[in-house]
Amino acid sequence: MASLDPGIGEKFSQRTQRAINHDGTFNVRRRGGPPTHDPYQRLILMPWGRFFGEVSVLFLLLNGAFALAYMALGLENLPGVAAPHGWWQDFLSALFFSVQTFTSVGYGHVYPGSNGAGALSSLEALVGVLTFALATGLLYGRFSRPTARILFSRVAVVSRRPDGTPSLQFRVANRRANILIELSAQVLVKFTDAATKNVSYAALPLERESVSFLPLTWTLVHDLGPGSPLHGLSAADYAARDTEIIVTLKGYDDTFAQNVYSRNSYVASEIAWYHRFRQAYNVGEDGIAEVDLDALDATEPL
Amino acid sequence: MASLDPGIGEKFSQRTQRAINHDGTFNVRRRGGPPTHDPYQRLILMPWGRFFGEVSVLFLLLNGAFALAYMALGLENLPGVAAPHGWWQDFLSALFFSVQTFTSVGYGHVYPGSNGAGALSSLEALVGVLTFALATGLLYGRFSRPTARILFSRVAVVSRRPDGTPSLQFRVANRRANILIELSAQVLVKFTDAATKNVSYAALPLERESVSFLPLTWTLVHDLGPGSPLHGLSAADYAARDTEIIVTLKGYDDTFAQNVYSRNSYVASEIAWYHRFRQAYNVGEDGIAEVDLDALDATEPL
Amino acid sequence: MASLDPGIGEKFSQRTQRAINHDGTFNVRRRGGPPTHDPYQRLILMPWGRFFGEVSVLFLLLNGAFALAYMALGLENLPGVAAPHGWWQDFLSALFFSVQTFTSVGYGHVYPGSNGAGALSSLEALVGVLTFALATGLLYGRFSRPTARILFSRVAVVSRRPDGTPSLQFRVANRRANILIELSAQVLVKFTDAATKNVSYAALPLERESVSFLPLTWTLVHDLGPGSPLHGLSAADYAARDTEIIVTLKGYDDTFAQNVYSRNSYVASEIAWYHRFRQAYNVGEDGIAEVDLDALDATEPL
Amino acid sequence: MASLDPGIGEKFSQRTQRAINHDGTFNVRRRGGPPTHDPYQRLILMPWGRFFGEVSVLFLLLNGAFALAYMALGLENLPGVAAPHGWWQDFLSALFFSVQTFTSVGYGHVYPGSNGAGALSSLEALVGVLTFALATGLLYGRFSRPTARILFSRVAVVSRRPDGTPSLQFRVANRRANILIELSAQVLVKFTDAATKNVSYAALPLERESVSFLPLTWTLVHDLGPGSPLHGLSAADYAARDTEIIVTLKGYDDTFAQNVYSRNSYVASEIAWYHRFRQAYNVGEDGIAEVDLDALDATEPL
Repeated sequence: MASLDPGIGEKFSQRTQRAINHDGTFNVRRRGGPPTHDPYQRLILMPWGRFFGEVSVLFLLLNGAFALAYMALGLENLPGVAAPHGWWQDFLSALFFSVQTFTSVGYGHVYPGSNGAGALSSLEALVGVLTFALATGLLYGRFSRPTARILFSRVAVVSRRPDGTPSLQFRVANRRANILIELSAQVLVKFTDAATKNVSYAALPLERESVSFLPLTWTLVHDLGPGSPLHGLSAADYAARDTEIIVTLKGYDDTFAQNVYSRNSYVASEIAWYHRFRQAYNVGEDGIAEVDLDALDATEPL
Repeated sequence: MASLDPGIGEKFSQRTQRAINHDGTFNVRRRGGPPTHDPYQRLILMPWGRFFGEVSVLFLLLNGAFALAYMALGLENLPGVAAPHGWWQDFLSALFFSVQTFTSVGYGHVYPGSNGAGALSSLEALVGVLTFALATGLLYGRFSRPTARILFSRVAVVSRRPDGTPSLQFRVANRRANILIELSAQVLVKFTDAATKNVSYAALPLERESVSFLPLTWTLVHDLGPGSPLHGLSAADYAARDTEIIVTLKGYDDTFAQNVYSRNSYVASEIAWYHRFRQAYNVGEDGIAEVDLDALDATEPL
Repeated sequence: MASLDPGIGEKFSQRTQRAINHDGTFNVRRRGGPPTHDPYQRLILMPWGRFFGEVSVLFLLLNGAFALAYMALGLENLPGVAAPHGWWQDFLSALFFSVQTFTSVGYGHVYPGSNGAGALSSLEALVGVLTFALATGLLYGRFSRPTARILFSRVAVVSRRPDGTPSLQFRVANRRANILIELSAQVLVKFTDAATKNVSYAALPLERESVSFLPLTWTLVHDLGPGSPLHGLSAADYAARDTEIIVTLKGYDDTFAQNVYSRNSYVASEIAWYHRFRQAYNVGEDGIAEVDLDALDATEPL
Repeated sequence: MASLDPGIGEKFSQRTQRAINHDGTFNVRRRGGPPTHDPYQRLILMPWGRFFGEVSVLFLLLNGAFALAYMALGLENLPGVAAPHGWWQDFLSALFFSVQTFTSVGYGHVYPGSNGAGALSSLEALVGVLTFALATGLLYGRFSRPTARILFSRVAVVSRRPDGTPSLQFRVANRRANILIELSAQVLVKFTDAATKNVSYAALPLERESVSFLPLTWTLVHDLGPGSPLHGLSAADYAARDTEIIVTLKGYDDTFAQNVYSRNSYVASEIAWYHRFRQAYNVGEDGIAEVDLDALDATEPL
């Protein structure tokens, strides 16, 4: 029968760390492969601080290069440059003129006074305008990445329903005020055999695979009865097998018209046995339903 | 059996208001949760007036800060500033120079006359251009949000078809001229038990779950025969149970290549008993079909 | 049984024109409904010539307004304005200064020489920058609309396959070089009863409902055998019933990562009886397959 | 029975080259069809070098045209132009003034000194700003095209599993660090009859049609047992029939919120008989799984 490996591997020479971190990233290092030449992706994904840092450095380098070009042409071609003339002062004057051209400020107290300077400054004006067109596109690309954030309860619980059936449960809520709809979930369990180090996977069907809206919370419930791959296992068994519960959520963010995918996992130490979740929503005096996101993790012993 | 709660809650300590408002928003207040740090989403969602207000204030604050920096540097570094020099006049002169640099206007009657002023104005030129790039991205982000508007009839009707079978009906049309296609609907009923305050849900299947196009109107029909959760209930029963008919529409806007989701609900007081909808479309003299959106709500007694 | 009306209406007081035009638009007029206030959609959808016309007019009006404001302030506040001073010359001078500020050109031969002029020109610089941010967003919004173009054969044919079974066929190809994939089709027939004017619909299943790629042509085939709603009907029958074959195609444009929907219809006069399509593709000397889009419509008698 | 032709043709007058190249493009030439008038698509798809080349040429042509217009108006209308005046020097001076207006630099050492020059430069300022807005939109359009890159193993293998069953296998990995999820595959085989040149297709079902994530590698396996269209065929048979294994992958790029489609094919010479793939992933000392993309193609004899 075909493996249920969701794509994260089956044969390792030793035990691996958890497959999926709480922020949804995979614990995978990548080596080799052809060079990818993807400056756009790099600039889109890097943190904001680093982005503005790289932009500033590029700005200085480009303008420094043009400044050197103006100096090579000869600063007498830029009437109005500051006196006295030493190399460093000339460079600064050329640099400021370059910035004023590159950014289209163009005060005019320094201006191109020859055909050579006219040509070079015209080229720089074009380069400057295109560079800022690029920057605009990059900034928008950074904004428009999907931003839906789904909160998962810090722990999953092994609970017991009123009729006595045991179940594995965890809870999700939408961190933001945007409207998430048509949320569906898939849950797998990953076991690692302590002896062979081989990894196996099994599906954990949920009582409800989807929910129409997520304005409040959604508790995902897997029945631990006889049909479950986890049936009859104790907390010690979970730990011995490096049990990892892997969750994939998929939904639609109606505010920004984007698909939303979210991943998380619970390892053996993140499962609270014989607890249940406290309800995290109720109704205010005025009849408006109220959800308390701080209560998402709240559990109590059975 | 798993609950059909679409995600809007089952156990409340008192009766709640309607779950979904006519504009599709949920009657839910959100508290707690980790801070979200999402200035982009805030700027995209706020009303236009507030957006331009915040942009103007930010513009003034940034330029005010640079003005103070120029003053700290010393206005003698900006030849051409207006006389006489008092603190307020100096500030205004520095402010105007700052704006002329920030927006790249750069008249030049006032200009940086020292290395310090050159450096500060170069920095300001860069900040100004990046801020403009940001504003462009924000403006486009505000535009490109999904804008499809689906009109729902103000009321739903309990009607009777020619063959005597009772049905619950409501009607939708596209408010705009853009083309909506592949529209599908899901309808649920939400009951609140007057004694326990518990909420329950049941599906209301439609005779047609979808329609290919929506250039005219679409009347959604639920058969109130023996299989229906509403079978045999009177208007008083609907009211006693806080009955809410919850509708989710999903379609595709072919003009703007966007998915479209729309929600609405009808509470007991919004159901017209023993009425039917008047046809809202017909054909003009020239053979072109015509839809009258003002007639969307038009009903008549049976 | 629920009607198969795809959404284009069933009860009209007289015969209607064709429901769908060859460019995929619907023959529907819309009246009434709440006002829609959607300048963005209007600006995005209008033809290019009209768009640039409206932009130019808005540009003139805004700058004209600022020009009048500068004149109201008094042109002595703008040192450098041209002489002689008459109302019209003053207006032109103020207008040119306004444009130079609005577009950030800012030559500087005319400049704000008082606090009032400084404030007004600073405001204009901000308005100008925001207006061009808006224009950038609008231009991109106009570009990024879905642009896939599917060509339909000008006629559909009633043909006979080698084994004698009659079939209704028409053909599609991709007008552009972008890659269309996962193309699927739905076909309906619309009849109008000559006496009652009522419209009815029936599905016309295809031998193949979808194709993986569309680099060449795709001939859609409906079997006219005993199961077909068109079985046994002659050309005269088609005309008597105002027969309209309505086609909806759906696919994915892999070059621009967009969904593609296309609609067309064939009325009775656009069906060629007892013809077949000539093959519109073959292979060149070098083994590369070649499709000739001019041959898309090519039919020959059986 | 309806053909399984995925859309790449069945009747050719001679043998064709492979249908799909390794970069996913089709070996198809397109002729004829109505003119498409799609400058946007052309500018978006062309290589970067050519794009910047065309932008620069357009920039020179537009500014050259405005330069000629200023000369026709008479350069005495632009006080400050350089001396001496000959045609070529006049043209250069007008050109530099044009660029300074077009790019909004506007130094001001040359400025419009008459109403005619004011009007012409105002028009040029508007044209310049709109052109910049267009360029920004084009640059963003170029960036935002789907960029996911899926690596396919250079060869497919005919292998034998431990239990003796033969299988056809090939392998994929994600070239980039972005997260690909819900990847599904469809595989067909295309045969060409040596005598008739007719082409036929058959589906090659996989043991697993999809995988949830692709952080490591995914080996796609087709069982060559009795049910397979390739059952019992030898390498010589594959070559005789111009066998081409056509693969379509579809997934979702979670980093950029885009659908991903990828195509590839393996011809007879690209199949390694009685080899198997070496595992390309393992675990590092620290327990982090590691994938080596350089090992994607690594096979070894059985």
